[in-house]
Amino acid sequence: MSPNRYTYLGPEGTFTEAALRTLPEAATRELVPSVSVPAALDAVRTGEASAALVPIENSVEGGIRQTMDELAQGEPLMIYREVLLPIAFALLVRPGTTLADVKTVTGHPAAQPQVRHWLAQHLPNADWESAASNADGARLVQEGRYDGAFAGEFAGPLYHLEPLAAEIHDAANATTRFVLVGRPGRPSAPTGADKTSAVFWLEDDHPGALLELLQEFAVRGVNLMRIESRPTGEGLGKYCFAVDAEGHITDRRVSEALMGLHRICPQVRFLGSYPRADAVPATVRPGTSDAEFTGAADWLSRCLDGRGEQ
Amino acid sequence: MSPNRYTYLGPEGTFTEAALRTLPEAATRELVPSVSVPAALDAVRTGEASAALVPIENSVEGGIRQTMDELAQGEPLMIYREVLLPIAFALLVRPGTTLADVKTVTGHPAAQPQVRHWLAQHLPNADWESAASNADGARLVQEGRYDGAFAGEFAGPLYHLEPLAAEIHDAANATTRFVLVGRPGRPSAPTGADKTSAVFWLEDDHPGALLELLQEFAVRGVNLMRIESRPTGEGLGKYCFAVDAEGHITDRRVSEALMGLHRICPQVRFLGSYPRADAVPATVRPGTSDAEFTGAADWLSRCLDGRGEQ
Amino acid sequence: MSPNRYTYLGPEGTFTEAALRTLPEAATRELVPSVSVPAALDAVRTGEASAALVPIENSVEGGIRQTMDELAQGEPLMIYREVLLPIAFALLVRPGTTLADVKTVTGHPAAQPQVRHWLAQHLPNADWESAASNADGARLVQEGRYDGAFAGEFAGPLYHLEPLAAEIHDAANATTRFVLVGRPGRPSAPTGADKTSAVFWLEDDHPGALLELLQEFAVRGVNLMRIESRPTGEGLGKYCFAVDAEGHITDRRVSEALMGLHRICPQVRFLGSYPRADAVPATVRPGTSDAEFTGAADWLSRCLDGRGEQ
Amino acid sequence: MSPNRYTYLGPEGTFTEAALRTLPEAATRELVPSVSVPAALDAVRTGEASAALVPIENSVEGGIRQTMDELAQGEPLMIYREVLLPIAFALLVRPGTTLADVKTVTGHPAAQPQVRHWLAQHLPNADWESAASNADGARLVQEGRYDGAFAGEFAGPLYHLEPLAAEIHDAANATTRFVLVGRPGRPSAPTGADKTSAVFWLEDDHPGALLELLQEFAVRGVNLMRIESRPTGEGLGKYCFAVDAEGHITDRRVSEALMGLHRICPQVRFLGSYPRADAVPATVRPGTSDAEFTGAADWLSRCLDGRGEQ
Repeated sequence: MSPNRYTYLGPEGTFTEAALRTLPEAATRELVPSVSVPAALDAVRTGEASAALVPIENSVEGGIRQTMDELAQGEPLMIYREVLLPIAFALLVRPGTTLADVKTVTGHPAAQPQVRHWLAQHLPNADWESAASNADGARLVQEGRYDGAFAGEFAGPLYHLEPLAAEIHDAANATTRFVLVGRPGRPSAPTGADKTSAVFWLEDDHPGALLELLQEFAVRGVNLMRIESRPTGEGLGKYCFAVDAEGHITDRRVSEALMGLHRICPQVRFLGSYPRADAVPATVRPGTSDAEFTGAADWLSRCLDGRGEQ
Repeated sequence: MSPNRYTYLGPEGTFTEAALRTLPEAATRELVPSVSVPAALDAVRTGEASAALVPIENSVEGGIRQTMDELAQGEPLMIYREVLLPIAFALLVRPGTTLADVKTVTGHPAAQPQVRHWLAQHLPNADWESAASNADGARLVQEGRYDGAFAGEFAGPLYHLEPLAAEIHDAANATTRFVLVGRPGRPSAPTGADKTSAVFWLEDDHPGALLELLQEFAVRGVNLMRIESRPTGEGLGKYCFAVDAEGHITDRRVSEALMGLHRICPQVRFLGSYPRADAVPATVRPGTSDAEFTGAADWLSRCLDGRGEQ
Repeated sequence: MSPNRYTYLGPEGTFTEAALRTLPEAATRELVPSVSVPAALDAVRTGEASAALVPIENSVEGGIRQTMDELAQGEPLMIYREVLLPIAFALLVRPGTTLADVKTVTGHPAAQPQVRHWLAQHLPNADWESAASNADGARLVQEGRYDGAFAGEFAGPLYHLEPLAAEIHDAANATTRFVLVGRPGRPSAPTGADKTSAVFWLEDDHPGALLELLQEFAVRGVNLMRIESRPTGEGLGKYCFAVDAEGHITDRRVSEALMGLHRICPQVRFLGSYPRADAVPATVRPGTSDAEFTGAADWLSRCLDGRGEQ
Repeated sequence: MSPNRYTYLGPEGTFTEAALRTLPEAATRELVPSVSVPAALDAVRTGEASAALVPIENSVEGGIRQTMDELAQGEPLMIYREVLLPIAFALLVRPGTTLADVKTVTGHPAAQPQVRHWLAQHLPNADWESAASNADGARLVQEGRYDGAFAGEFAGPLYHLEPLAAEIHDAANATTRFVLVGRPGRPSAPTGADKTSAVFWLEDDHPGALLELLQEFAVRGVNLMRIESRPTGEGLGKYCFAVDAEGHITDRRVSEALMGLHRICPQVRFLGSYPRADAVPATVRPGTSDAEFTGAADWLSRCLDGRGEQ
């Protein structure tokens, strides 16, 4: 096991690496790129790395399916941190290249929808071919295979490229969310501004099952920040649901909701409680604070002793 | 305090006394009538009696308001047993009286709707006047004030009266439910066929409050057997709700629902868990058994240790 | 039929008469007392009177069962108006009587809980006996049967009595609600501040039925102002629910909820839409105004023509 | 406009073409491949084709995002038919190639997860490179760029290739769902076994909004067959929901639910009602048939005339 090694979706120069470097502890770790999300997570599973940073959600493209599916299936892993990174692309070219010289461009497939309009306006005749990653695209430009690569501006120096344009993005506020994943262990300590992730499988052929899932949260006043369906692979219409809920598993309203779901779902996977990157404190509806849960438990004990009114 | 004394809504010869005598422990207790439901319950509060049997619900007239209000307000009491008694009246008369002789009849006001049709058919010209209780009516017939009294057939010998007709009731299956009330203490032991009674006050001016109350039960799979609104006395439209739920306070689904209601209601009064008189076992929806609650709690503990999948 | 005759729960001098006289149209009608709520309502059913004013709800005692049951069962009637009357009692005595002279008092049973504390404080030794109505109690005082009667102060002159004390009431804001009932016809015209009354029977042995009833209202944004259970007479635990909802049957959110309930309930009885006595305008949740209902219906029509986006 | 021309996600030899050929009307249409889902749908929008068949959901990979996003945004289109196609791959090679000769394989990225295990077992050392479509992969094998292509067996003759293995799929019952999309018009006629598709946007920052969306369906007894979230592109956590509901827009329970959602959602897009490929008739919960809706509307009319009991 290598407690000092963190891996990330590489190669060097990707947005994932940039996101990882925003974490203070990254400064004291060996940072090693992996060739894919599964490779990064397997490195954690096998102990080659103690943690992996991988993208999990993109405000333009939605959930990153490979990450979601890897976390939902196979040997369990847990999320300990999240990082939000605004996404803006630079068009990286070899020094001396002008816009008129750019006939072919590349980048990760996920970059394409974010640069589509810029391309249509500035390089309507350029041919796009996908690369395995944005950084890989930059490397291919360095090697002369393409004229330009869309990547983070920070990737330029690494591949001796220069930005011909920067801050390119279709959607204002385009953001990618990354998670730091490790082997299962104690959840991150609660901060008052936390998020809890889990995956729930529902009973087959039970039309109201999703409604029941939401009610387990609603009745305990737990807000859902994200819910995304993923096929279970067992046939059309068979889904599991990945959920991010406001609050920490040690918050009583959250733990009671999770236990409620454990009782009614054939399968539940807890993916971790961790600080929200935006540090927004949880909203606590009246009647759902830990103090109120404790007060209710005390009252119940008194009822069992015939002293419910005291 | 008189642990050996039970009181009941008297006088002697009422249905309440008949109901009390169906309880095995009544055979070894001193049974003392009280003049009213408040008097019976106050005898328990002051310690003159260790328990009181009072009617709480009638299948024809609904909840007995005096009992409901006494249990909801004032010094707390608890329900330990319930008794169901089919209600059928006899027309009790002095020996020798014939139907043609009966010009005036009496009985408790609650008896009237149950004998109305019989009267219309057999004694269309008889005058009805209300008595304080069915047994009191019988006494007034003995004293010659009225010609006939509607009461339980068992009251006849007590007042030297004879039944001119019996098994009189308007509604087939007319039943009264009585409860044995004592000072607060440990609830009756669970039997697997139990009922839990409580009163809930809701937030003023919160239209969805009753829906939320029901959802606290529904989400834990607890069936409600009875819900009845009572004014709080604080103005029109201000209600509290008396509820009988299936199950025992020591059932996890019931206790979690009660605690949920304690958190969202400004006031809750637990009135007891006790064996159902009909001995029908509770229906336990999948996911709501004690074993499943325990399993969920164990899973949560493991999640907190990073072993949620084991 | 006597369109010009209104009846009310008599005798003369009751609160009901006082309530009826607050209605402007009462000035031009012949007002005739009835001996009981059923008698008043039967007078309407047979056409002897065109309308009857009867009490339906009391902020201290709750729903008036006889009125609720008469409206829920038997030949249909409808509510066209409501009247709210603050309830305060006077102790009426024969001229010359002093407080020290008062040994026996009377009044309607419903008056007792409202004067109990006053009695305990000022006349702790006086005996209470119930009368058929507050006005009847006054008459019995006039006849010398009792020393004092609790009734509305307005009843004094009618029976040549004087108030020894006034404004007696236990609960501040004690109020009784009366309804003006007629044969079924077009509901009162909508005013923007209306109330709709109905009675719903639920499926036997369906624990979630009340929750479903409430959800039919909630999903259309209709607030409930009152819900009260009444036994159906078919056995313990068999209830129907009397409901007062905010809004008028011609409001789309109300009519859709009523139709939804008609579909899921084995029986529904519409009791009328009529102006709220307090004239508080209905709160209309976003998405539930008539304009939004019409907009949605227009959109649906366009969808059926393939023009849903226009 | 070319009413006789249908397009599909090409090139020739894809599963989409195979799916399109299962539709009887395809036999009399000119079938033209498009290079991408957006290109196919744009051909419909511009009138070059009267309909396009595109994949929308895969039991292994989930919703096809490009199709979902194209239908949710941009100029409106509607779904008129669906086709289900079991997915099984053949490994297509040039005649004479043996398994030992296969060093490089290709196929559409979506094919990879479905052949992964087969590859690990039979060709653990083969290199995978993605192609633009399965058929395109076959063409590249024909041209000698790769040794084998995973595609539908039906694509073999088109590219003069032979199957070295067939019926390859990781998940048993792997199925892709395709939809036939046209310009907006009258929905397909109801068959009793129909499906309705729509996209709903929810209010920002309203945690209970998804629960409300589900309740609009649940309260009218409409089952959801699929619900999938898609980012709106306006930032993390901003989602719209694509829904497939059981039933036809002309079913009253479906139309009332759609209108309810139109009222509470800031935006709704109706995508069509069309026959279910599996021809399973809709389950109609008691109280939600068209006859019961009509009965309730008739009752409401009678209530407005004072004849609610007839």
